[in-house]
Amino acid sequence: MSLFDHILACNNADLSQFLPFLTGEQRIGWIHRSFAERLEVWPEVFDLAAERVSLAPRYNAFASRSAALDEVLRALAESGEVSGWRGEVYPVMVNWGDAPILQMERAACPRFGVRAWGVHMNGYVCRDGELFLWVAWRAKDKPTFPGMLDNMVAGGQPIGISPQDNMIKECAEEAGIPTDLAAGIRPVGALSYCHQAGDTVKPDQIFCYDLELPADFTPVNQDGEIDRFELWPIGDVVNRVRNSFDFKFTCTLVILDFLIRHGVLAPENEPDYMAIAQGLHRPAS
Amino acid sequence: MSLFDHILACNNADLSQFLPFLTGEQRIGWIHRSFAERLEVWPEVFDLAAERVSLAPRYNAFASRSAALDEVLRALAESGEVSGWRGEVYPVMVNWGDAPILQMERAACPRFGVRAWGVHMNGYVCRDGELFLWVAWRAKDKPTFPGMLDNMVAGGQPIGISPQDNMIKECAEEAGIPTDLAAGIRPVGALSYCHQAGDTVKPDQIFCYDLELPADFTPVNQDGEIDRFELWPIGDVVNRVRNSFDFKFTCTLVILDFLIRHGVLAPENEPDYMAIAQGLHRPAS
Repeated sequence: MSLFDHILACNNADLSQFLPFLTGEQRIGWIHRSFAERLEVWPEVFDLAAERVSLAPRYNAFASRSAALDEVLRALAESGEVSGWRGEVYPVMVNWGDAPILQMERAACPRFGVRAWGVHMNGYVCRDGELFLWVAWRAKDKPTFPGMLDNMVAGGQPIGISPQDNMIKECAEEAGIPTDLAAGIRPVGALSYCHQAGDTVKPDQIFCYDLELPADFTPVNQDGEIDRFELWPIGDVVNRVRNSFDFKFTCTLVILDFLIRHGVLAPENEPDYMAIAQGLHRPAS
Repeated sequence: MSLFDHILACNNADLSQFLPFLTGEQRIGWIHRSFAERLEVWPEVFDLAAERVSLAPRYNAFASRSAALDEVLRALAESGEVSGWRGEVYPVMVNWGDAPILQMERAACPRFGVRAWGVHMNGYVCRDGELFLWVAWRAKDKPTFPGMLDNMVAGGQPIGISPQDNMIKECAEEAGIPTDLAAGIRPVGALSYCHQAGDTVKPDQIFCYDLELPADFTPVNQDGEIDRFELWPIGDVVNRVRNSFDFKFTCTLVILDFLIRHGVLAPENEPDYMAIAQGLHRPAS
């Protein structure tokens, strides 16, 4: 396998299997063709046409759109068609920075193919000129991707908090990083991908952060979502990514970006250097 | 104006004005429709069809393709249709890392719309926690973009030298950076754009490098291509890019990437953060 295989694996979506999900004339998501007919039981909420699904135009403001959809989402959670309800609300927007069109339970976003945003942080240590990366093992009882490798800190981006504040909050919850240390996080870029899992799709984007940590700091998980942390020489990280899919797929993207920005990958040692640099930033779907 | 305007300005090409330029079934460039008929005087070199221009199939190897085209390029230089002959040969490939299909005089690449690569380096200084960037004023007698602002060191990527070695060579020629200091360059990513100027087009890609310099180092141009260097506080760089097109357009891309990677731009202070991050890495044309 090659590093570029991770770009392909993350971007496996076949959007021809999906119908555009619209409010007015604006596409806000993707609904699988096989799932669209399921929405026929809510004729007051959805207008179903051959090649599109629209939110009924009577829902023409943030609050009414959010409320109408929330009722549907709770029924779908009841029936198991939306799983892993989080009680965490995401803004629904086409592009980051737009005014939210509505808000939606996090767990339901892939079912409706609406774009979600996340924040990921690579914590690293420089020792005698050598680079080490903190990696996290996800808890074995975590509902999604249990027991897989993860970035040191990562989280979804809910409505009503800035990415920076969200990242600092996650630093405390996931790794016990005190606020004064977490204040050193540096925004270093943004990635995008489009990942299909069965009849759901995530056309998502990630805000990336770096944090250089003192050699004597040891992270301690606070929320039970991480089994343990390990500090790996960067060469071990490269080997693990190059030879396995042991990292959760989104985390692999964030590591590849880190390896490029820190000069670990170079045009001379990675034949797909250019393709990886572009593949991490694909146009939004 | 906004920072994102630079992404738009760099990516102004309308490829519907161009015909694909092929060897065999592989597209290697773009030739403007208005220029294609000019190639009729070389019927032994080009096969002209309604919607494509092909190199004649008898030229089926690197050497013969390069020689056949070289004769045409020299005639075009004579007539002024290729200007600024450099005597510097570029590899012609579809993707970086491919085996070169032929080689071509650098100055002729935009006329045939073949992809060219370049290396750009941002030299910076950290002083009391503040970031300063070295900027270069291009010589007023430079044939291209005279008197404009530039990255500290930049150059085209000719055939037969690695990007890393090329960057170190340019460091010496353009800024008098000694080899031991230049050895500290760090590859930090790759950018892509597609820029049209009249009936020529550059679907090009850039390898980016950072070099942190000691506060007491002063660059000195060696090859006459730079008028002078100045060390600017990073805030002045941001303001200049935000409010002018004074930097050569490719250099603006490299600076935007630097500002993102170093956390100067953030999701909270730049509304087009996500669009800029994606726009710097557009899929190759």
